[in-house]
Amino acid sequence: MSTDQPTIMASEIAEIPAVVERALRDGASELDGVAALVERRPPRFVMIAARGTSDNAGVYARYLVETTLGLPVGLAAPSVTTIYASRLAWRDVLLLAVSQSGAGPDVAEVTRAARAGGALTVAVTNEPGSRLAGEAEAVLLLRAGDERAVAATKTYVASLAVLAGLIGRLAPEAAWPSLLPGLPAILSRSLDAGRAWLVGEGADAVAAFAAADEALVISRGHNLATALELALKLKETGRIFADGYSSADLLHGPVALAGADVPTLVPRPDGALGTSIDEALAVAGRAGAAPWWLGGPEVAGRPHALALPRLPEPLSPASLVVPGFLLVEAVARARGRNPDAPPGLAKVTRTR
Amino acid sequence: MSTDQPTIMASEIAEIPAVVERALRDGASELDGVAALVERRPPRFVMIAARGTSDNAGVYARYLVETTLGLPVGLAAPSVTTIYASRLAWRDVLLLAVSQSGAGPDVAEVTRAARAGGALTVAVTNEPGSRLAGEAEAVLLLRAGDERAVAATKTYVASLAVLAGLIGRLAPEAAWPSLLPGLPAILSRSLDAGRAWLVGEGADAVAAFAAADEALVISRGHNLATALELALKLKETGRIFADGYSSADLLHGPVALAGADVPTLVPRPDGALGTSIDEALAVAGRAGAAPWWLGGPEVAGRPHALALPRLPEPLSPASLVVPGFLLVEAVARARGRNPDAPPGLAKVTRTR
Repeated sequence: MSTDQPTIMASEIAEIPAVVERALRDGASELDGVAALVERRPPRFVMIAARGTSDNAGVYARYLVETTLGLPVGLAAPSVTTIYASRLAWRDVLLLAVSQSGAGPDVAEVTRAARAGGALTVAVTNEPGSRLAGEAEAVLLLRAGDERAVAATKTYVASLAVLAGLIGRLAPEAAWPSLLPGLPAILSRSLDAGRAWLVGEGADAVAAFAAADEALVISRGHNLATALELALKLKETGRIFADGYSSADLLHGPVALAGADVPTLVPRPDGALGTSIDEALAVAGRAGAAPWWLGGPEVAGRPHALALPRLPEPLSPASLVVPGFLLVEAVARARGRNPDAPPGLAKVTRTR
Repeated sequence: MSTDQPTIMASEIAEIPAVVERALRDGASELDGVAALVERRPPRFVMIAARGTSDNAGVYARYLVETTLGLPVGLAAPSVTTIYASRLAWRDVLLLAVSQSGAGPDVAEVTRAARAGGALTVAVTNEPGSRLAGEAEAVLLLRAGDERAVAATKTYVASLAVLAGLIGRLAPEAAWPSLLPGLPAILSRSLDAGRAWLVGEGADAVAAFAAADEALVISRGHNLATALELALKLKETGRIFADGYSSADLLHGPVALAGADVPTLVPRPDGALGTSIDEALAVAGRAGAAPWWLGGPEVAGRPHALALPRLPEPLSPASLVVPGFLLVEAVARARGRNPDAPPGLAKVTRTR
């Protein structure tokens, strides 16, 4: 394909600020209602069921629940229900089931089993008439409109926003929930900054990733979700072996892959998490890795860095992923691939 | 290095049957004691804290606990404790902390926090005098002897065996625990079969993986641990971008990476899990992927397959990983790398 033809993926990335605004505004009373339901039946543990991109939104929710609500979280292995047919002790569990299509049999079956076992089940989906929405006791809609690209972008960020909307309502005393309404405006600025970067210094990043068959994407904490999601998108749309890691896990083996020949993307929030990420990247740097940073104001002035607007770290994944998506889309095109038609993939994947 | 020099990694793989026998036999009364402790304080939820190879043993334990005990499981994110300093609701939680060295500050700090918060904490480690052993309320020793290779192999399989020993004691009515004492003999046969295969048809597998810079390792259920662990070892020792996936997750994006140019290793247990894995590999096969199977008796007669002795699926990961380790060790040497000296790695990794 031509490298300058507009893609569906690019047009849906451009919708992200408006989609998040709609999800939070039009979904406000729905979020209030589900938060009240959770407060009436306070969970002891939280389980999250999801696949693919939604699973990465689940990784975000995992950190947000643990750091904000202090409840232990597990990421469900659907096969335990769908293949092993094991009955779990679901009582006192809040199950968050995330699926933009709501069509995957596995996530729906886990939700059905959890509800039958006494869990409070909440579906996060873009499709009100989906099987998942029917199985769950409560539904939070993404309101992202029709998503046509196989590579989900706007529904991913909408999922982050809706999950933050729910968790923030359960912990109004935390520092970040009051800043959630300002997120759409920040996302607009991230989008603009990402676009400007890609026609400036970021063009070198596009060239570096496009020329490589392998890449690393490293972050930590809430932004482990960002690293996993951007790595998945590089795989799907660019056919690049991109591995997403927490900076700590990187040091437990995969750092052997680091090198000057392996482009490394680092979504880096400000603060203690950023410092921790820097320490691991210093180790990778000794192997020649020269990272590209997508960060908060703290990365301003670093080589190969795009500094985005300030945000509390728990909200930063929504912002850091936006220029990352733009980068991935450009890399796929630069590799001569159509990001709207990844090989072997359809929009809805039905696994059990 | 010379490709026919014996490596420490190879000699430690050869110790696996004896190590597992010792762990189960000499550790029997320790396992009895910890099982009795867990029965006196029955948990509602299980969390597992680990890094690297031990984290893959944790993935095994995750499936084993859910499918055998029916308790929901989460894999701990150490940063929640070590960086965010969040206090989790640890009451009624059983924390399994797995670390061969017991020296990592992160796993020890999670254990300390969990114990202070009311969790029952059990360390699984090879080092009785380690910080982790000191922090935990109960300790299960691996008894693997000194492990000198950076790439942990015998302690990985010992961790699987000890975790199975504990979980099996908590569910004596399940089908597999009574077969655990026979595991060392099966592992001897797997070791012999793997060695014979590598000088026969498996030599082609070594050549295929050695010639590639990218690979896929696909399995599901308990053997997701096997896939993740063999992928990690290919990264560490062979510097191959090897991605380990569950066969279901493969279809949610990463299948775009599959192709005739990407060698694919499939640890495949018999039964329903194996059938599920076959279905996903059929999709990958349409992209040209031609898998190498390490399986149970069901794979006998398939092209590119090593059939190992029959075992109940929950115990199969210990057996399937053994020829996998032999393959990885041979691949690293064939790539001219010393598997005992992965770049950027030391035997003990201290992350927070």
